[in-house]
Amino acid sequence: MSRIAYVNGRYVPHREAGVHVEDRGYQFSDGVYEVCEVRASRLVDAGRHFDRLDRSLAALRIRSPMSRAALTLVLNELVRRNRVVDGLVYLQVTRGVAPRDHGFPPARVCPAIVATARSVDRAQRAARAQHGISVITVAENRWPRVDIKSIALLPNVLAKQAAREAGAYEAWFVDTAGFVTEGSSTNAWIVTNEGTIITRSANEGILRGVTRTALFDILADGRWALEERPFRVEDAHAAREAFVTSATQAVLPVVRIDGRPVGNGAPGPVAMRLRGRYIEHSEPT
Amino acid sequence: MSRIAYVNGRYVPHREAGVHVEDRGYQFSDGVYEVCEVRASRLVDAGRHFDRLDRSLAALRIRSPMSRAALTLVLNELVRRNRVVDGLVYLQVTRGVAPRDHGFPPARVCPAIVATARSVDRAQRAARAQHGISVITVAENRWPRVDIKSIALLPNVLAKQAAREAGAYEAWFVDTAGFVTEGSSTNAWIVTNEGTIITRSANEGILRGVTRTALFDILADGRWALEERPFRVEDAHAAREAFVTSATQAVLPVVRIDGRPVGNGAPGPVAMRLRGRYIEHSEPT
Repeated sequence: MSRIAYVNGRYVPHREAGVHVEDRGYQFSDGVYEVCEVRASRLVDAGRHFDRLDRSLAALRIRSPMSRAALTLVLNELVRRNRVVDGLVYLQVTRGVAPRDHGFPPARVCPAIVATARSVDRAQRAARAQHGISVITVAENRWPRVDIKSIALLPNVLAKQAAREAGAYEAWFVDTAGFVTEGSSTNAWIVTNEGTIITRSANEGILRGVTRTALFDILADGRWALEERPFRVEDAHAAREAFVTSATQAVLPVVRIDGRPVGNGAPGPVAMRLRGRYIEHSEPT
Repeated sequence: MSRIAYVNGRYVPHREAGVHVEDRGYQFSDGVYEVCEVRASRLVDAGRHFDRLDRSLAALRIRSPMSRAALTLVLNELVRRNRVVDGLVYLQVTRGVAPRDHGFPPARVCPAIVATARSVDRAQRAARAQHGISVITVAENRWPRVDIKSIALLPNVLAKQAAREAGAYEAWFVDTAGFVTEGSSTNAWIVTNEGTIITRSANEGILRGVTRTALFDILADGRWALEERPFRVEDAHAAREAFVTSATQAVLPVVRIDGRPVGNGAPGPVAMRLRGRYIEHSEPT
């Protein structure tokens, strides 16, 4: 639980952390966010999260609320004040507070910024990886601009809830052509029987995950074959392994898809190896 | 400007009207809303707005935050406290405040409710109708569940802003087959050269507008021919008239679409007649 939140220039007790009812994030989902892992009280891959935040803000033409240096100071201070060792920082920027009107408010309206930090149970996350997760598939029903990390997450909410009610941990969106796009809060990967790692290109239909990009760095050593292309649900069913990536969960093996086991139904060696490599690779220095 | 807002059981000065940063409306666009016209200090078509609110809440499985009787009292009190004669009431219900997690929070988490009321300039609205409005068309890029009046409005925000930057008042979404779905905050109608009024069926691709439904009541007298079917942008260009409907604008004639005049480029007689009929018809009693 976050104890202290950062809201528009002030550190406030989490309980009292509020935004105005006419914040455009609340009325129009007119904002963007980032979730950054914290390890050993340090931000993991902060530069890439800030880069993506900048891209999201630019795509929506929301002004950056502060410099990267200032934002870094704020997030580190938030980690310190919340005494987070292993956890995550959540950051949200919206177009600000203005009388309700769909079009953009006047330029004088400042973007609003909120950040929270909380600890996560590292052992619980590790146990989840050891067991692997179940995934269901749902019809892709999000707008096309999923490359923007916006807070318009209602379809993701419903997909995640459908997964939970099916006893699964994640839902994969599947487009009308039968291709998996991504999970409701993760990127999706498979490992073919030939040992090739496949994940969809970030040029269409998905968000460019920061953890996904970090895995690309790891895979650049050529030890594993990597193909960046769409795969179908049937490819996933026929795969030797499957896994998901996200900043909060690193690499998580997928052991069931729509109730059917993937491979032998246990976390796959490639996924577990990559999880280890990712955790080493992203160790804050 | 709203002076007093209603937030989760309390009437508070608008300036201080806040919600928690972990309200799911703020982080996930996990909520719904209604905008109800106020005329002569009374709610217009409140029953239909409440019906639709119930449908939206049910579709998202959000509990109703209060009885219809209580909600009526609250909104009327809000109108009174804000001394609104002609204006509108805005009502938003979200799934409540809970630590961030995409799936639904535990059942003990109460939905959050916010309402505001403000006056509008009746003369300005009438002048807008007298002049007619310009519309641009944009590619439909919203999720399929536009029948739910959710606050996931980011595509609508961008469409409205695109309209504004093109010197227009509204943007019409056009699906991949070339059919107009609806406006970013209005329903879309045309009148053919044969005098037939056409608007898309509310069974697919649009929100069932309350003002749209009220116009159906008016048109039920059979004086005008009405067809409920999709129409193309070309049909609109070739039409004798076009107009939009919404609770905040009643009936507004469209005089230009993508820069090309509709009919003779002036507000059409059917639209103006219907505007008058609607305003009479919906007079609070």
